[in-house]
Amino acid sequence: MKAVELIRRKRNGEALEPEALDWFCRAAGTGEIADYQVSAFLMAAWFKGMTDDETAAFTHAMVHSGDVVDLSDIPGIKVDKHSTGGVGDTTTLIVAPIAAAAGLPVAKMSGRGLGHTGGTLDKLESIAGLKTRITLEAFKSQVRRIGLAVVGQTSNLVPADSKFYALRDVTATVDSIPLIASSIMSKKLAAGTDAIVLDVKCGRGAFMQTVGEAVKLSRLMVAIGTRLGRRVRAVITRMEAPLGRRIGNAMEVMEALEILRGEQRDTPLYDVSLTLASHLLVMGGAASDTGAAKAQAMQLLARGAALDKFRQMVEAQGGDARVVDDPGRLPQVRHRVPVPAPTAGFIQAVDALAIGEGAALLGAGRARKEDSIDPAVGVVLLRAAGEGVKAGDALAELHVNDNAQQGAAFEKVQQ
Amino acid sequence: MKAVELIRRKRNGEALEPEALDWFCRAAGTGEIADYQVSAFLMAAWFKGMTDDETAAFTHAMVHSGDVVDLSDIPGIKVDKHSTGGVGDTTTLIVAPIAAAAGLPVAKMSGRGLGHTGGTLDKLESIAGLKTRITLEAFKSQVRRIGLAVVGQTSNLVPADSKFYALRDVTATVDSIPLIASSIMSKKLAAGTDAIVLDVKCGRGAFMQTVGEAVKLSRLMVAIGTRLGRRVRAVITRMEAPLGRRIGNAMEVMEALEILRGEQRDTPLYDVSLTLASHLLVMGGAASDTGAAKAQAMQLLARGAALDKFRQMVEAQGGDARVVDDPGRLPQVRHRVPVPAPTAGFIQAVDALAIGEGAALLGAGRARKEDSIDPAVGVVLLRAAGEGVKAGDALAELHVNDNAQQGAAFEKVQQ
Repeated sequence: MKAVELIRRKRNGEALEPEALDWFCRAAGTGEIADYQVSAFLMAAWFKGMTDDETAAFTHAMVHSGDVVDLSDIPGIKVDKHSTGGVGDTTTLIVAPIAAAAGLPVAKMSGRGLGHTGGTLDKLESIAGLKTRITLEAFKSQVRRIGLAVVGQTSNLVPADSKFYALRDVTATVDSIPLIASSIMSKKLAAGTDAIVLDVKCGRGAFMQTVGEAVKLSRLMVAIGTRLGRRVRAVITRMEAPLGRRIGNAMEVMEALEILRGEQRDTPLYDVSLTLASHLLVMGGAASDTGAAKAQAMQLLARGAALDKFRQMVEAQGGDARVVDDPGRLPQVRHRVPVPAPTAGFIQAVDALAIGEGAALLGAGRARKEDSIDPAVGVVLLRAAGEGVKAGDALAELHVNDNAQQGAAFEKVQQ
Repeated sequence: MKAVELIRRKRNGEALEPEALDWFCRAAGTGEIADYQVSAFLMAAWFKGMTDDETAAFTHAMVHSGDVVDLSDIPGIKVDKHSTGGVGDTTTLIVAPIAAAAGLPVAKMSGRGLGHTGGTLDKLESIAGLKTRITLEAFKSQVRRIGLAVVGQTSNLVPADSKFYALRDVTATVDSIPLIASSIMSKKLAAGTDAIVLDVKCGRGAFMQTVGEAVKLSRLMVAIGTRLGRRVRAVITRMEAPLGRRIGNAMEVMEALEILRGEQRDTPLYDVSLTLASHLLVMGGAASDTGAAKAQAMQLLARGAALDKFRQMVEAQGGDARVVDDPGRLPQVRHRVPVPAPTAGFIQAVDALAIGEGAALLGAGRARKEDSIDPAVGVVLLRAAGEGVKAGDALAELHVNDNAQQGAAFEKVQQ
């Protein structure tokens, strides 16, 4: 098969057949097709889109460009969740323990933060000793034993997506709904779980700026998963302000623990986490409907069962489990800098994008993949949108170590 | 400036400003911008097109990505011609000597054949000893002395076009009128002449399949040249059947000599050559209108003045000038193979594409740039479209040396 012919057909708006897509994804993954042909194909797909069937076939082809995790020897309906990326969005650390406490095997492969959004692996690694790089066998054995593991990618999953993702970033082809949907779903499908809940963020702090786009993306991801034999549900949630009150790696673990310990309720982070958990409970067969599932999730929190699962996971992955009962053992910063309101008035909005970028500037996030991060630093939000403030009132607190970019972060947060 | 930002703007249909295009072309030429970004840009341009002003600015930017030939120290209006590529299309070897004989300095840089179309350099090099690689100084001094030189590119002209051309070929972005027009015109403008006649081919043997496309391309190339301060005219000519009766390098030199010697008149090759020559004569100020110019061109042929110029050029470039009076000195083949009509009937069409491909298979052309060619081989057409034939009548004659692909060429020509 010739790459130029597939580019031409996609450019002309044809829907490509599964065999052609299989070849293209495999050869793109191995590098047999040159990057300049892959990027021309992606631009053609950006313009012409893909049908639902074609997107499902493309996703299937991406999955099979590399290894596929086989979880079939773990009994039960293995569940997973995915968020399209937000700020102060630490739902995995709450949802996964709840699902595991309800008896569903949670076999989750997570990612690192990039740009203004955080990543679960970075957050977990702020717990001393905790390992997220383990073998596939150790991963599966942990899921079998305690019903919960959250780790990095264990093997060569979806090399075609790695290639496409890197090229899309530098060729202005990120914002394509079929390309986003196939990228997300290929990674979820290659990770081998049976039921997946998707948290599709919508708003200023998210990829999808409008509800209409978020609905399209959600519908397409559910269609892909269903066509490829998985149980998939999508929940659309707002991402204008940060989801939690704390932004930063150890600080988000602390906030997740607050919810798992029953110390924080009825906040946006709490609400979204319970919604996602209840869908998983229904898909996994632990509850008959989301109402019953939500009640069950609240009970599991109240009984401390979810907190126990979190503790077991930290122990199993070699981390210092004492943080679960004593969050003060998490990394701490040297300085706390209040951010005062420049004038009196009402807070119109708390901008997730600006806060996320501010936290990244302090060292909580990465500008490039190879950058290192500081687990302790971040931002604590003290006021929410709609509240009135006097000039000089503290809006937020920066948690900082010695850092040259503190001034820039201050400005981002003060906006 | 960031390449991804320019790709995004082109993708969104913006017309880019000259500064952005200057940067893009220069950086693409040096390799500072990665190929995968260049190809994504080209695909975006394929979809969104370019305004006339933008195409002119893009062409200007391509010209200035490399060296520009300065012919200003040669007196007079320097003229050039360009054909978009055909089969049996050897007009340069007729038009250039006529223009030179009329006193116009002809400073022409030509190319080699690729695919089913021939190239002037390959044809000239079938004359023993003739050199087409000479220095820029030798080129200019020859134009000053005898008013005529036809050579290969003398220096690093339009590196951006070399990059774009190679990438377009493998990313299905060849068939874009702004990209074709800017590619052709950038090379003509970098070569430094004042007046250019363009022969835009239209039909089955050409890039432009329809008259409408040929008109668009012509109009755009004239607009580019005019905006950038040159005199440009375009002539649209049919390319269904081969233009001349002989296809092959030495064989086309032979046919050009027939016309220069006055032995062939009122054939398609003769008519197109005289049309192109008359436009050059008008643009160069040697005639007031194309009617007068055509009469002058016929006189120059009848007087042997054009043949003399051809002879002077061959001598100046080190070739065996005896071929001018004795074409039998050109390379000859070992075998001539008649191609008989398979059945009786009328010849519906002589397919330029098939004949060009057939000649290339015999060794007259190249499948890849690095292939070598056989100057002697080719095809002589014995019948034209519309003629009646009996089964077994010879339609054409293959001029071959020992060659494995003779059977395939036979089939192409017999069609």
